Amino acid sequence: MSKQRQLKFGAMVHGVGHGWGEWRHPQAQPDASTSFGFYKQQTQLAEGAKFDFVFIADSLHIHEKSSPHYLNRFEPLTILSALAAVTSNIGLVATVTVSYTEPYQVARQFASLDHISAGRAGWNVVTSWLSGTANNFGKAEHPPHAVRYRIAKEHVAVVQGLWDSWEDDAFVYDKQRGEFFAPGKLHALEHKGEFFSVKGPLNIARSRQGQPVIFQAGTSEDGRNFAAENADAIFVSAESFEEAQAYYRDLKRRASGFGRDPEQLSILPGIRPIVGRDEAQVQERYRQAVALVSIEDAIVALGRPFNDHDFSQYPLDAPFPELGDLGANSQKGGSERIKQLARDEGLTLRQVALRFSQPRRDFVGTPEQVADAIEHWFDNGAADGFIINALLPDGLQTFTEWVVPVLQQRGVFRREYSGHTLRDNLGLAVPANRYTHDVLEPATGSEAVA
Amino acid sequence: MSKQRQLKFGAMVHGVGHGWGEWRHPQAQPDASTSFGFYKQQTQLAEGAKFDFVFIADSLHIHEKSSPHYLNRFEPLTILSALAAVTSNIGLVATVTVSYTEPYQVARQFASLDHISAGRAGWNVVTSWLSGTANNFGKAEHPPHAVRYRIAKEHVAVVQGLWDSWEDDAFVYDKQRGEFFAPGKLHALEHKGEFFSVKGPLNIARSRQGQPVIFQAGTSEDGRNFAAENADAIFVSAESFEEAQAYYRDLKRRASGFGRDPEQLSILPGIRPIVGRDEAQVQERYRQAVALVSIEDAIVALGRPFNDHDFSQYPLDAPFPELGDLGANSQKGGSERIKQLARDEGLTLRQVALRFSQPRRDFVGTPEQVADAIEHWFDNGAADGFIINALLPDGLQTFTEWVVPVLQQRGVFRREYSGHTLRDNLGLAVPANRYTHDVLEPATGSEAVA
Repeated sequence: MSKQRQLKFGAMVHGVGHGWGEWRHPQAQPDASTSFGFYKQQTQLAEGAKFDFVFIADSLHIHEKSSPHYLNRFEPLTILSALAAVTSNIGLVATVTVSYTEPYQVARQFASLDHISAGRAGWNVVTSWLSGTANNFGKAEHPPHAVRYRIAKEHVAVVQGLWDSWEDDAFVYDKQRGEFFAPGKLHALEHKGEFFSVKGPLNIARSRQGQPVIFQAGTSEDGRNFAAENADAIFVSAESFEEAQAYYRDLKRRASGFGRDPEQLSILPGIRPIVGRDEAQVQERYRQAVALVSIEDAIVALGRPFNDHDFSQYPLDAPFPELGDLGANSQKGGSERIKQLARDEGLTLRQVALRFSQPRRDFVGTPEQVADAIEHWFDNGAADGFIINALLPDGLQTFTEWVVPVLQQRGVFRREYSGHTLRDNLGLAVPANRYTHDVLEPATGSEAVA
Repeated sequence: MSKQRQLKFGAMVHGVGHGWGEWRHPQAQPDASTSFGFYKQQTQLAEGAKFDFVFIADSLHIHEKSSPHYLNRFEPLTILSALAAVTSNIGLVATVTVSYTEPYQVARQFASLDHISAGRAGWNVVTSWLSGTANNFGKAEHPPHAVRYRIAKEHVAVVQGLWDSWEDDAFVYDKQRGEFFAPGKLHALEHKGEFFSVKGPLNIARSRQGQPVIFQAGTSEDGRNFAAENADAIFVSAESFEEAQAYYRDLKRRASGFGRDPEQLSILPGIRPIVGRDEAQVQERYRQAVALVSIEDAIVALGRPFNDHDFSQYPLDAPFPELGDLGANSQKGGSERIKQLARDEGLTLRQVALRFSQPRRDFVGTPEQVADAIEHWFDNGAADGFIINALLPDGLQTFTEWVVPVLQQRGVFRREYSGHTLRDNLGLAVPANRYTHDVLEPATGSEAVA
């Protein structure tokens, strides 16, 4: 087996893509958002190419102006449970908010997915940033940004504590003595914190990977620290190689600062490759993808990190408007990044909107060119791998069938899975159960009851 | 096709059974509670026998004295989503509490399961009765029984309202005009009630069966009214034919009182058949099942409807203790039934405990005898079908392979599925969307945006 450092790949799957116009492609299946067949086919494509995981994004608030990919979609834990039944090695990463969920329920559903899939579950921890989400959950108000991250930290700690409720050798199954488990190996968390009060124990054991893998996507100051301290893998959106490199350096440094081995934190930019067999096909595919993004859609999409702010009120070709602290309590990192870019490059509203909606040029090319770009980022401290947010209808197919073999030939991506769990795929160790210690005395056992 | 009234069958699936001692059977697989392979095999057995549905029970609070089937188990929505991927016709009924869940999340996960399964989802609505559950969800106290049913009524109404967010023809997918949906066909619920405030709309469409089917299991006065008003099917535990008949009559009468067609409400007692090829095998299997229930386990099990009351403090062979209103704020109907039976028959604690833990005699026999008993209940106003809570290790296999063919031959159970959805299986109509009316004017449509 190659000792060379290996790329990691995830596939983001959504029936109508994550852009606005993809469903309008002549070959796109516009009702695929709730088609299990489509999700199964895409996931099996990714597993066939030995991807580390599939990734399901999420949101919890829609209105008439929402993009098609928010309007109608599977809930992540249910669709990934179904996909677990028709796959065997690929990881299954579900986005679930900490803002409007109970840790007991989140811990339990992920643990259940982790058992169904025999150790392939991952949790992409997010805080909800659209204030309207609160209205779907009976909350009077959307918590401030800093509070959201305090909630996140406590929520994740509770979930991870619940996941350890049962030590790995707790179940003894002694039929003669009637001893199902060793009571000393079942632990109640007894958590009482600022936001949550959860006694435990959880009613499900640990899986073969110990605990689900933690994903995060922090870009604000709070978000970066949260990710650096808690995440096994980070999904990041980067506008350029330089931005990705700066983020990569910063997050690895922060992880070290938290006493972690930075190699145990994978940084995975999301990219939208467009691949053609030759230069002509590349250009044709790129032009088509660009043409599907209307300026009206791009303007609506731009509003999202600013709490669905209506940008159609500003002149399109004037300088990007002055927004004050708009966005600071919404998607803080994302909205700051947009304001910064507009300022730094002196862009108009139209230019900014299109910049963030149109596919970028970095990963557009022939299979060799796209593989080169991937290796460039990978070798120069900008990425440990990528989340492929492929364009519909056949972006994942062209990437897996054309680009992946080139990377395999170059020895930077696996040809076969070497393990069974998501932790195996990502090279992460099974975390020790917090309650399990090397002890000299014999384990406590209950007396036979029958 | 036969015009004869048809039996309905559900299979309750649990890796270690729903009794205490089943895991101790020599052939039982004691770690099956989190084995997807076991759940898949049992569900495919049930589907092979043309059962209407599989049913997953649930609970949210464990402690060291809990029975093995509570301690370690899949979460219902995730395991049923996985089972959806490996089945095609059988309904998938998940138990989910209204006491500690958000209607938006419940509506969404069931709708997602309903799409994954192409219209086979059912929701068994329960209120949580163990006061300790509150401690896992940061709640100061367990709400009083009557309040729990007020919560249930509002919760279900909100969920059903959210399920109608999208009219069935809302998605127009006009690629040329860029019109993904017709805005007039997306509806926000705008619910503000006593317990919940939920704006909507839900971010997932209705499935081909319109809405998931509602199951319930009410036995208290409040519970019976709730079930009679809201449920499509009722799972009931009955100690005898006479009790089942009285319940059946009462619930059908209450359903009529709510202005419903009583035939649209299926009443399904849970039964634990023990089947042998001949009298000797029947007796051998029955004896073995009885022997697996220890009095210690039966005493613990008896405590459960009384909020895990410790019955080991009372003398076993003295008359059943006087308990005052213990249980009234726990599983009210179930605990009252136990007290009533003890009083009516003058039983000791030991007798009561064993009565509720040991398998009953009603459905023990050869395939023909069990089929006779089933037909007797079915023909005499005690049941519209049954939930088979089969004993491990092979209870479901013997029932499906030996008893079902007898019932098929007698023309009272289907040989093939006649539809695709759970509503098709149960003979329930697709509910109209509350927002859809026959209108003469053309549907409102948005202008093209591109």
